[in-house]
Amino acid sequence: LQTLAHAGQSWFVVSLVGIAIGVNAAVISIATEWLSDIKMGYCSDGWWLNQQFCCWEIEGTDEDTCEAWHQWSEVMPARWAIYVLFAAAFSFIAAHLVKSLAKYAAGSGISEIKCIIAGFVMKGFLGFWTFFIKSITLPLVIASGLSVGKEGPSVHVACCVGNIIASMFKDFSRSQVKMREILTASSAAGVAVAFGSPIGGVLFSIEEMSSVFSIKTMWRSFFCALVATVTLSAMNPYRSGKLVLFQVTYDRDWHFFEIMFFIILGIFGGLYGAFIVKFNLQVAALRKRYLKNHAIAEAVALATITAMIGWFNHFMRIDMTESMAILFRECDGASDYDHLCQTAYQWQMANSLFLATVVRLGLVVISYGCKVPAGIFVPSMAIGATFGRMVGIMVKAVNRAYPNSGIFAVCQPDVPCITPGTYALLGAAAALSGVMRLTVTVVVIMFELTGALTYILPTMIVLLVTKAVGDFLGTTGIADEMIRFNGYPFLEKDDHAYNVPVSRVMRRDLKTLPVSGLTCKDLEEVLSRTNVKGFPIVSADSKNILMGFIDRTQLRYILEKAQNLQDVRPDTPVSFAPNAEDLEEAEFAGVAAAPAVGLDEETSLGLMESTATQDVLKLWPWVNQTPLTVSPQLPLEIAMQLFKRMGPRIILVEGQGALVGLLTVKDVLRFTMLEQHQVQYSPWSGED
Amino acid sequence: LQTLAHAGQSWFVVSLVGIAIGVNAAVISIATEWLSDIKMGYCSDGWWLNQQFCCWEIEGTDEDTCEAWHQWSEVMPARWAIYVLFAAAFSFIAAHLVKSLAKYAAGSGISEIKCIIAGFVMKGFLGFWTFFIKSITLPLVIASGLSVGKEGPSVHVACCVGNIIASMFKDFSRSQVKMREILTASSAAGVAVAFGSPIGGVLFSIEEMSSVFSIKTMWRSFFCALVATVTLSAMNPYRSGKLVLFQVTYDRDWHFFEIMFFIILGIFGGLYGAFIVKFNLQVAALRKRYLKNHAIAEAVALATITAMIGWFNHFMRIDMTESMAILFRECDGASDYDHLCQTAYQWQMANSLFLATVVRLGLVVISYGCKVPAGIFVPSMAIGATFGRMVGIMVKAVNRAYPNSGIFAVCQPDVPCITPGTYALLGAAAALSGVMRLTVTVVVIMFELTGALTYILPTMIVLLVTKAVGDFLGTTGIADEMIRFNGYPFLEKDDHAYNVPVSRVMRRDLKTLPVSGLTCKDLEEVLSRTNVKGFPIVSADSKNILMGFIDRTQLRYILEKAQNLQDVRPDTPVSFAPNAEDLEEAEFAGVAAAPAVGLDEETSLGLMESTATQDVLKLWPWVNQTPLTVSPQLPLEIAMQLFKRMGPRIILVEGQGALVGLLTVKDVLRFTMLEQHQVQYSPWSGED
Repeated sequence: LQTLAHAGQSWFVVSLVGIAIGVNAAVISIATEWLSDIKMGYCSDGWWLNQQFCCWEIEGTDEDTCEAWHQWSEVMPARWAIYVLFAAAFSFIAAHLVKSLAKYAAGSGISEIKCIIAGFVMKGFLGFWTFFIKSITLPLVIASGLSVGKEGPSVHVACCVGNIIASMFKDFSRSQVKMREILTASSAAGVAVAFGSPIGGVLFSIEEMSSVFSIKTMWRSFFCALVATVTLSAMNPYRSGKLVLFQVTYDRDWHFFEIMFFIILGIFGGLYGAFIVKFNLQVAALRKRYLKNHAIAEAVALATITAMIGWFNHFMRIDMTESMAILFRECDGASDYDHLCQTAYQWQMANSLFLATVVRLGLVVISYGCKVPAGIFVPSMAIGATFGRMVGIMVKAVNRAYPNSGIFAVCQPDVPCITPGTYALLGAAAALSGVMRLTVTVVVIMFELTGALTYILPTMIVLLVTKAVGDFLGTTGIADEMIRFNGYPFLEKDDHAYNVPVSRVMRRDLKTLPVSGLTCKDLEEVLSRTNVKGFPIVSADSKNILMGFIDRTQLRYILEKAQNLQDVRPDTPVSFAPNAEDLEEAEFAGVAAAPAVGLDEETSLGLMESTATQDVLKLWPWVNQTPLTVSPQLPLEIAMQLFKRMGPRIILVEGQGALVGLLTVKDVLRFTMLEQHQVQYSPWSGED
Repeated sequence: LQTLAHAGQSWFVVSLVGIAIGVNAAVISIATEWLSDIKMGYCSDGWWLNQQFCCWEIEGTDEDTCEAWHQWSEVMPARWAIYVLFAAAFSFIAAHLVKSLAKYAAGSGISEIKCIIAGFVMKGFLGFWTFFIKSITLPLVIASGLSVGKEGPSVHVACCVGNIIASMFKDFSRSQVKMREILTASSAAGVAVAFGSPIGGVLFSIEEMSSVFSIKTMWRSFFCALVATVTLSAMNPYRSGKLVLFQVTYDRDWHFFEIMFFIILGIFGGLYGAFIVKFNLQVAALRKRYLKNHAIAEAVALATITAMIGWFNHFMRIDMTESMAILFRECDGASDYDHLCQTAYQWQMANSLFLATVVRLGLVVISYGCKVPAGIFVPSMAIGATFGRMVGIMVKAVNRAYPNSGIFAVCQPDVPCITPGTYALLGAAAALSGVMRLTVTVVVIMFELTGALTYILPTMIVLLVTKAVGDFLGTTGIADEMIRFNGYPFLEKDDHAYNVPVSRVMRRDLKTLPVSGLTCKDLEEVLSRTNVKGFPIVSADSKNILMGFIDRTQLRYILEKAQNLQDVRPDTPVSFAPNAEDLEEAEFAGVAAAPAVGLDEETSLGLMESTATQDVLKLWPWVNQTPLTVSPQLPLEIAMQLFKRMGPRIILVEGQGALVGLLTVKDVLRFTMLEQHQVQYSPWSGED
């Protein structure tokens, strides 16, 4: 029955998290749209209406026919000035809020969440203030027109929601494993609501986020993403009844000869990824050195520049999402934005698209990483889309000029053969995949965004090329690069060949505790003298036989609690090992000899009362009596696999029965860095 | 450079496997279609043409207008008899071939491949004959009209192809890990070509097949599925230019009130899964007991019954895939199969669909598992589709009868509100998910099959309900149940709570080898006396200190090779431990102290020549000096996680420096079975 209640609670918590994420996403969407429109004009029927709702009654979509909507000014330069001013104001507010209230709200947050899910602890990164400030500033940043996206931050916000809600439940707040599951599920929901792509979200959580994959986690992610998406869809923020951002239907199929153009797009994606990763890291280094105290000024400057330049390009003036929707569209019927489909304008359009690609590329390099919420998904896709559409237009022009040449032989006469919109779609996929180094996720997301079923194979081909180019250039995903840049302890998923045994890397000067013979006072002293995260327990004789391991937090917690019990005095001896009758009793109580890390507080206290007697304070229920151990000759690769797949914080090294060392992820990372830089001092300060 | 060559070889092998799978799938498709049509008639222009190609020139699809195509007879009873006769003949040939040439070609093969990927060895299961016979008999079985699908067998055939091709390359044939990767990738390609769903295949390989998930495996699967699908699409067996089996476009969106009907479909899926798993296992038990020697008669009888009954139902006479394509379709325009869309016939249709559901259900229960290639994907989907369409028709009828009642309030008048085709789609998804216990994979497959983008959320909701019902009823997927039924050693993915330490389960009576003091003759004797799979190496004194582990195969291999070297005589002493200079030399040669399991044959022989001297035969390069060890108090759960996540064959148990036991997956399974049955003898015979 209790198991059932626990299972029920899990479902309840995940549902709650999903609903909260959905509601939050809807609010953010509405706010973003209103703020974006207010840059251009206002609604005389009510200031709270955005352009779409203001002109809801009017059938024609042409903005000039809608009387209730007023442009700020009729004069062109004034409109430009107001546009730029709003952009600057929005970015100022956002940067100021972030700087003064929640530093962690800056950036995309995906790298940090990857580390947190892998077991790294960052206090406050998923706290309420981060959530609140990031939710408020995200619409401002997007509306300011900066070349940043909302998808990364939306994952971060979702994880904050998951963390905040799950922390309210004891089952979760006490269990690191469950908390990581919730965070993984939240990240799936975050992507799901950002793109309206629930399955893409699940795959994102598998491919990018989770370090250990399990069917249970996948199922949680599925459920959380579903609840969040249904909530969002029920709130219907776009009033279109659609979740899908840019639904397209391509009537025409692709031809095999087009693969050679698709390969160009794939190569572009790979190069784009390598370019962004390389230069964005350089900008990040410069920012860290020179602009540390000018974060607000930097954001405002960037927004101003972006708005000033962007105004003059058809595809940069409007929202990135909107421009993608236009670029993906097929060229038939009435849907012609700004002569995009007209043959007479084709070179002008190609030129305009090329400019948009290059300028946006530069802006992304300098904007991503500035101290406001900033994602890189949508900007990458926008760049890929402009480039792809440009290629598409050029291929179409060639086709029109030489309709009878060899490669176009399969085209039927009088039927359009090339669909430039599909090139934009594939370009967007390539750029996204190039910068994130995701494959399956990107296919599913593109597919869920557009419904272009017939284009699954071309998408896969393009991503294959992108991946090959990326591998050739040795690019890693921008999230992983950011982790490395910031020096977070994170193990890459790829296995690295070290060719050294564990003994070369392990720490040898250990703070151990003998299994008996210490008093409470001794323990207090040890705790205050050192700051290691835990203590191996060894036999009291000189043989150094490993008996167990106790966490520092556990030890401190139990000592503090013990002081409130009257029987315990500073000179009460402590014992870490259970004796036979203890074990019997424990088995009866269902505790077994396993570590007590997951115990409830009540059980914990009850246990202590029974273990704390006048004679001796028994600490064995809090000792992990079976820590993971390896032999010193074990190749480091295997130890790394143990860390990655089993997820322990420490691995103890035991040689012929005696404890000889201790290994943590940080030790391995330190070793790797030393190897790489060939320097002889450690860049890591302090004990971990 | 060598790394590059190795990487290149991997790509090359995976491409080759993908192409072969694609070609094979195309051939199977063409053969299946021809055989299906030959049951009804023949083409006078050429016997090798199927109905579609025979009537290629004629525009109208009505079969009566095509003159070249002749029905076998004009008289109805004769047509029926010929139809039944063909079905019986096909099933006879298939069953006979399977029985006489390749026993392993029977069944779906998914359970067995799961075990093989998890590390179980089944000789011949992925061999050439299995491949060849399964490829030949599969079209026969499908054409015979048995209620079995081609998707499971197609995965098996794909894995055979992967195994056969990869075995030709040394890098793969020597490395179990690489072989498993190839098999996982092949299974992805198998699903991809069977459904025309590349991403669904990748997810299938993640969700169902792989025991250890890694990004690299996922990427291999992606690539292999892509190559296979492109190959298939280039061969274009359907001549439609489409990969997608039943592309549909639903113009109308779903309404929130429909969720309550979707929930009915979800419940049906869960019940269906539980029903099939329960009764199919009972049938399997009966088959094992009574029908062991009547496999051919059984298959023929089943095919005859299926054909005799099926003829009289609109939805069972035609191919299951074809019937699904009809059921999924929206009701507008000309696409009206047999009055399916006409209001006047709605009750007749509902009745017919209900009958089809029930009869097919019975047929699947008795047919799945008979000794011909037989999958359960498509039959499940077909049952779900008939049931779903029935529900859809009924809901539509209710809507038409009470257009103004509460729940239909959101429907606009004069516009069709309910789309029965979508119910069929959701029903198919529910049934598939219910029987396989897959979630994300099913969503993606349904989505790739139909392109019904707007129906992602309903599909997810339906699968959620199906999963909840299945969990409530305690159903496990049919593949896992089959594994349990057949007694294969396989660890379920769900963690099981054992509440016992490793010491309760481990084997204590070990055959160990002392590190020194034995001669070649002694070793030969030990090998012939025991049949254990490997030997722990312990110190020569009485302390029993663990020094390493050597595989039986390695030991036998090296002893055999050593006999050909002149320096080695039967009384040459052997040594399992390296001394200091050996290690130095080895490090120089790049072998390090790691196990030599992955060494090339050449290096291996070279090594031996240097290690085999007059004085002593040094075996240390073949000893795994760092086997995975745990302490006897370790909870069994953790040991199981080690097995699952790290994938070793054995785990040694070491207490306070001395070897005390050995644990294999079989030991754990034996323990679980003993626990369950409370019997005191072991159902496992012999050593593993």
